[in-house]
Amino acid sequence: MTAQTIDAAALWADLQAVRRQAPLVHNITNFVVMNYSANALLAVGASPVMAHAKEEVQDMVGIAQALVLNIGTLEPDWIASMRLALQAARQRGVPTVLDPVGVGATPYRNAAIGELLRSGAPSVVRGNGSEVMSVAGLAAATRGVDSAASSGEALDAARALARDLQAVVCISGADDHVVDGGGRWATLSNGHPWMTKVTGVGCSASALVGAFCAVQADRWRATLSAMAVLGVVGELAAERTQAAGAGVGRLQIELLDGLQLLDEAAFKQRLKLQLHG
Amino acid sequence: MTAQTIDAAALWADLQAVRRQAPLVHNITNFVVMNYSANALLAVGASPVMAHAKEEVQDMVGIAQALVLNIGTLEPDWIASMRLALQAARQRGVPTVLDPVGVGATPYRNAAIGELLRSGAPSVVRGNGSEVMSVAGLAAATRGVDSAASSGEALDAARALARDLQAVVCISGADDHVVDGGGRWATLSNGHPWMTKVTGVGCSASALVGAFCAVQADRWRATLSAMAVLGVVGELAAERTQAAGAGVGRLQIELLDGLQLLDEAAFKQRLKLQLHG
Amino acid sequence: MTAQTIDAAALWADLQAVRRQAPLVHNITNFVVMNYSANALLAVGASPVMAHAKEEVQDMVGIAQALVLNIGTLEPDWIASMRLALQAARQRGVPTVLDPVGVGATPYRNAAIGELLRSGAPSVVRGNGSEVMSVAGLAAATRGVDSAASSGEALDAARALARDLQAVVCISGADDHVVDGGGRWATLSNGHPWMTKVTGVGCSASALVGAFCAVQADRWRATLSAMAVLGVVGELAAERTQAAGAGVGRLQIELLDGLQLLDEAAFKQRLKLQLHG
Repeated sequence: MTAQTIDAAALWADLQAVRRQAPLVHNITNFVVMNYSANALLAVGASPVMAHAKEEVQDMVGIAQALVLNIGTLEPDWIASMRLALQAARQRGVPTVLDPVGVGATPYRNAAIGELLRSGAPSVVRGNGSEVMSVAGLAAATRGVDSAASSGEALDAARALARDLQAVVCISGADDHVVDGGGRWATLSNGHPWMTKVTGVGCSASALVGAFCAVQADRWRATLSAMAVLGVVGELAAERTQAAGAGVGRLQIELLDGLQLLDEAAFKQRLKLQLHG
Repeated sequence: MTAQTIDAAALWADLQAVRRQAPLVHNITNFVVMNYSANALLAVGASPVMAHAKEEVQDMVGIAQALVLNIGTLEPDWIASMRLALQAARQRGVPTVLDPVGVGATPYRNAAIGELLRSGAPSVVRGNGSEVMSVAGLAAATRGVDSAASSGEALDAARALARDLQAVVCISGADDHVVDGGGRWATLSNGHPWMTKVTGVGCSASALVGAFCAVQADRWRATLSAMAVLGVVGELAAERTQAAGAGVGRLQIELLDGLQLLDEAAFKQRLKLQLHG
Repeated sequence: MTAQTIDAAALWADLQAVRRQAPLVHNITNFVVMNYSANALLAVGASPVMAHAKEEVQDMVGIAQALVLNIGTLEPDWIASMRLALQAARQRGVPTVLDPVGVGATPYRNAAIGELLRSGAPSVVRGNGSEVMSVAGLAAATRGVDSAASSGEALDAARALARDLQAVVCISGADDHVVDGGGRWATLSNGHPWMTKVTGVGCSASALVGAFCAVQADRWRATLSAMAVLGVVGELAAERTQAAGAGVGRLQIELLDGLQLLDEAAFKQRLKLQLHG
């Protein structure tokens, strides 16, 4: 699969596959967003399961088609479970998504991400520019090499991290950049600023990436598909919300409705996808 | 009270009792659904409290009128607290509801349910067909007898479990079956498929069963009342949602509105209740 | 600043400051309300962070502009983290809000509040009348003095507690009373009874008080501003909800919309503020 074959039709086909296959996505995520992530997965057509006890995470990974790790409200037992789950997923070939929420904010978060990376590379890392730069620095430090993140450019950091981990890296923002370890790079320019005013939208993006990786073996394309769907849905949902004179409360509901009801024509008309080089 | 006296008027009277008495329902439940369960209990007229520390669960049970246990995101400390709470509730005559979320999915969940059942039988077990069959098998194994669940029929498993525990067992699905240890059996046929696309609706059903058990000493009838109310509310809410061109995000809101605003005429007109034998 | 200068314009200015400065509010709060509190903070214009591990709470406080502690679903590790965070906040001059959810309900909750108070006084205590009386009794007992709460009057208890801790105390109810250690007292009479039928509205009030304390050094005024905004927003949201024939599900969404979209004219026209003495 080359970059040239990635277009709106391909991404839409991935959404159809999620809806048809209803993959089981195992989430070890933070307390704030568990409910919203589960509802986002259900709305898009996937099946969420949340389980974090070290006594069962390996078994749960064994019946899941994707694993999503999110360190938002981390504590030691949860990191230990994430490591067990990540190792089990890698052994079984289950795709894994890491959302390094708030990395860089405290030494403990940095240490946790370092520990996770030493357990093995996830298939996809998704975060904002600052988080991706922090992870890139930690990954480099873990391996004793200089960090490209020192350039201060998130995109450079993402590329270095993708090469280093041989993983897909997604930087979320006004534009979403998705790169892989082989040098592929695409940019999505959908979405709406209000999406940052609903807690858990970013975390739900990571959960959706998990669902799409479960049905699409090309993780770079799967990540693009998930981020494209959420971006278009968010853009339309924000427009509907504002047209109704409503606010960010209503937006969180419209987002879930949109994930369920998005149709092909709207998706293809709205998608702003740019493939680079 | 015989099965013949159970009709729409009786079930409606139970809802009125919940609204009038506002029973305190103590929940030890999973992280995903805590918020939605609390809002569902408030909407129906009950008072929720969530507390899980082993240091206080016995005291909290002491001031509650019902206890609801849900293993959705279990871990060892929580199971220990559930056991303490279950024992305290049984000693005080507080009705208890067990929602065995995901039992059968991992050995750890099975072990947890086995441990809980050895602490004492709950008043009501509510789950889907697969969960009820798993619990029936575990209950049978706990007592060293053959499991009726081996027949692969959820209803047979529910009856065996109800006899075994001398408890009410509710199988949720397109039809809800409610049986008790004395052979009573009724079927409710309300609801809507979209209810499975909102996380926590099943868990909220268990919470509502707790609220109804707090005001109705016949636990079989209480379970029927709770499931009837949620089924009718869900059906109406899904119709309103679809009529508005909205989706499962909107449905979660309409469900809460419906629990609060359901009126007698709509309930009696919509109720599909079948009493067997 | 004297009580005479506190008027609708002053309180509105505080909301504008929150919207402009987007203060980072660190919450160690209960599982039930984490999502709603985060969304309420985002809607009002603040930045929420939830973090509870003892390994990072001191660092997180170090980058936050306010700390909010809420014991709703407490357990030993969380109380230990709250103590560490409270001490770090006091050392750094970060304002702190304590929401003593359910204190008085179990001995364990009372012990936890006693432990927290021995770690240092928060800047603001916000609870309902019963909770404030319990905290006042515990604070008095901690210091070996008689409790004014024995009078059974929440307002007297609040005044005694405010003097004792040299803190602001807010009693939430049909009327909200806000007192400080220097004898200031004001009453807000906005709001709507349905606000008690959405879980987490009280807890979100405490979170908002944190956000306002982050931008307004007079904690008494900041508490008034936060409670005034929530009261007016809640009143308008309940009216909109009822006008639409909707219920408490819709209300939780309207509340968030209102926190984001509240305008100056509506705020000033609706505010019911009474300054005493």
